[in-house]
Amino acid sequence: MASTAGKVIRCKAAVAWEAGKPLVIEEVEVAPPQANEVRVKILFTSLCHTDVYFWEAKGQNPLFPRIYGHEAGGIVESVGECVTDLKPGDHVLPVFTGECKECAHCKSEESNMCSLLRINTDRGVMLNDGKSRFSINGKPIYHFVGTSTFSEYTVIHVGCLAKINPLAPLDKVCVLSCGISTGFGATVNVAKPPKGSSVAVFGLGAVGLAAAEGARSAGASRIIGVDLNSARFEEAKKFGVNEFVNPKDHKKPVQEVIAEMTDGGVDRSVECTGNIDAMISAFECVHDGWGVAVLVGVPHKDAVFKTHPMNVLNERTLKGTFFGNYKPRSDLPSVVEKYMNKELELEKFITHSIPFSEINKAFDYMLKGESLRCIIRMEE
Amino acid sequence: MASTAGKVIRCKAAVAWEAGKPLVIEEVEVAPPQANEVRVKILFTSLCHTDVYFWEAKGQNPLFPRIYGHEAGGIVESVGECVTDLKPGDHVLPVFTGECKECAHCKSEESNMCSLLRINTDRGVMLNDGKSRFSINGKPIYHFVGTSTFSEYTVIHVGCLAKINPLAPLDKVCVLSCGISTGFGATVNVAKPPKGSSVAVFGLGAVGLAAAEGARSAGASRIIGVDLNSARFEEAKKFGVNEFVNPKDHKKPVQEVIAEMTDGGVDRSVECTGNIDAMISAFECVHDGWGVAVLVGVPHKDAVFKTHPMNVLNERTLKGTFFGNYKPRSDLPSVVEKYMNKELELEKFITHSIPFSEINKAFDYMLKGESLRCIIRMEE
Ligand SMILES: NC(=O)c1ccc[n+]([C@@H]2O[C@H](COP(=O)([O-])OP(=O)(O)OC[C@H]3O[C@@H](n4cnc5c(N)ncnc54)[C@H](O)[C@@H]3O)[C@@H](O)[C@H]2O)c1
Ligand SMILES: NC(=O)c1ccc[n+]([C@@H]2O[C@H](COP(=O)([O-])OP(=O)(O)OC[C@H]3O[C@@H](n4cnc5c(N)ncnc54)[C@H](O)[C@@H]3O)[C@@H](O)[C@H]2O)c1
Ligand SMILES: [Zn+2]
Ligand SMILES: [Zn+2]
Ligand SMILES: [Zn+2]
Ligand SMILES: [Zn+2]
Repeated sequence: MASTAGKVIRCKAAVAWEAGKPLVIEEVEVAPPQANEVRVKILFTSLCHTDVYFWEAKGQNPLFPRIYGHEAGGIVESVGECVTDLKPGDHVLPVFTGECKECAHCKSEESNMCSLLRINTDRGVMLNDGKSRFSINGKPIYHFVGTSTFSEYTVIHVGCLAKINPLAPLDKVCVLSCGISTGFGATVNVAKPPKGSSVAVFGLGAVGLAAAEGARSAGASRIIGVDLNSARFEEAKKFGVNEFVNPKDHKKPVQEVIAEMTDGGVDRSVECTGNIDAMISAFECVHDGWGVAVLVGVPHKDAVFKTHPMNVLNERTLKGTFFGNYKPRSDLPSVVEKYMNKELELEKFITHSIPFSEINKAFDYMLKGESLRCIIRMEE
Repeated sequence: MASTAGKVIRCKAAVAWEAGKPLVIEEVEVAPPQANEVRVKILFTSLCHTDVYFWEAKGQNPLFPRIYGHEAGGIVESVGECVTDLKPGDHVLPVFTGECKECAHCKSEESNMCSLLRINTDRGVMLNDGKSRFSINGKPIYHFVGTSTFSEYTVIHVGCLAKINPLAPLDKVCVLSCGISTGFGATVNVAKPPKGSSVAVFGLGAVGLAAAEGARSAGASRIIGVDLNSARFEEAKKFGVNEFVNPKDHKKPVQEVIAEMTDGGVDRSVECTGNIDAMISAFECVHDGWGVAVLVGVPHKDAVFKTHPMNVLNERTLKGTFFGNYKPRSDLPSVVEKYMNKELELEKFITHSIPFSEINKAFDYMLKGESLRCIIRMEE
């Protein structure tokens, strides 16, 4: 690895030149890591719906040309100044939200919203010098959420990399770098369903099914899956979902349907759709007195959450979370160990696998609702 | 007492004949208590802003003629069938929300929203027979939240009465029957500020100042009082409020003012105004990552709570509570003991005292923002 350290690396990256247009595999130049930065060779990456929203740029600010991708696994190629926690050869998972270990959030037991490194979807540059490490013929290409894993090599702030067990298969544990940890953690760390409780999960993509898996592992007895796409229901059974509601099958709002099914509401709900109506339903479908709703989906930038304040006064709790409230560097290695110890199955989330050259297929699968996670193999 | 048991009692009550019009002291007939009901001789009552909202009937459904009043202390005159927990002579505090001890809420450790006896502001009759126990010349007068304490005698469901220490002075502890327990409990039972934390209290009436008192007793170090009426600030210092914000003094939204004062937001906020804008500000002014906002104020019936879902996703928590999450029969007696043990001062909440004949003055004081609690003495 030493041969490339300190030098520009030329490699392949999937560049989004325009909103909603297929990515183009280009040869890019990846600058060496600066202070507190790490250059990572990505081996496997997968597509999360958050990538799709920003690539579509319908409900989000456009920033192009950009290299998307934030769910991945790789190996450290070289490190910049001041990086002491990682060295070339370490196996790492990049995370879209970081952990500086020094700010009030990093020091709080409750928050993982690092002041320095929290998710920032509008920034397309590195913190150190406000510039991109990617370029094509000298023209900069923007980063995405500090990770940009749709590239053979990428530069990431050391605070956004979790060092993991080198025995963990990166083609599996890469899905823990976003979606699966997010959904699982949203349930076990935030919603915290008591044993025997009822949990509604809105959205049965990979994030929602990981939330369902969290509910099952917490001992919930009724796990109600809500999705507009009934094709998701059969597969969802593998994740512990044991009742199903498609809002399209009902005339009344889905929160009323769920309240009727559960004698007043579920004990917990976890919203994993990004749709504002689903967020409101997820809140209103929890039982008064003790119900807790957790929002996970990334909303449209102009979305407004609306509810009658009496729904709050009636002793419902509303929460939200990024990355399942896990602190990426401190907590993610132990989630990987859960997989290694067979406490958390990842294979069932992986429905597709394609070479990097076919990356646009991953977008098709997701947009058609056919995939949970599609692994993109960087080396072929 | 036995002489009146089982008979209709003729006594004085303050009847609201029309929305917003002064109450009229009338002679009313109070029927004997039916099964699970108790007839109580009210000795002291006070005015809470919730009475005022329903009397004004601007943002609430009108129901007239009606006898308001829900913050009070009294003595059991007689009991109906099946009442075993109370007997004539017992000292009691009526509560607008009850505790049947049998429903899922009463059995839950978290909820005090009893399915049978929770607050119902639209019902003006008793549960047993769907009729009122009050009448004037045979014409029924409606009850209010099951308590109707603006009457020398009233009939209350046994589940809405807390039996308290007979040594407790009813002219003081009557304020625990709603406002002070509500505010204090909202902080200590729901917001739960950690030691050394910052707490914003919106609305510095009796409920808000009790919330501040709760924050002080929990060890909060910064207690920021927010009120549109700056005349409240001086008095608020007695309740531990040590910083003040009048939204009228600022061009920017009060949540931004508070965020600037506190490096990103307070750790906890408790909203005690009933105003929807204050509810939204109270939510948005808590720190992301760990902040918890608790709504207490009774909203206008058409109010809509609106916020950008990203404010939730950024790991803020929104909660609401009635009666400070206390279970009235199980928990209120021990709150009375807090007063008896001098752990909770009530005198400073009592700014006025008037005879029953002057009850309309209590409304004036509150509407002008001059009083915290005005005690209404039933016997003179
Ligand atoms: N908070 C975080 O840290 C975080 C992390 C990762 C992903 N996310 C978000 O989580 C969400 C789910 O991501 P994913 O990768 O699983 O996406 P996905 O597309 O695989 O799954 C989303 C599912 O939601 C369903 N859905 C959409 N609108 C719905 C509605 N109104 N009612 C019911 N179901 C509806 C879709 O049919 C689909 O099955 C996205 O919004 C994504 O941006 C958030
Ligand atoms: N949830 C419950 O169980 C419960 C119980 C009792 C009272 N309440 C409610 O609590 C609230 C307070 O009751 P109270 O008796 O103390 O009333 P109060 O009138 O004595 O006090 C309310 C205070 O809020 C201030 N205020 C009003 N709008 C404001 C705004 N937009 N921003 C800042 N301050 C504002 C007023 O100036 C006043 O000082 C009322 O809404 C009442 O209905 C709720
Ligand atoms: Zn993601
Ligand atoms: Zn940090
Ligand atoms: Zn009250
Ligand atoms: Zn009950």
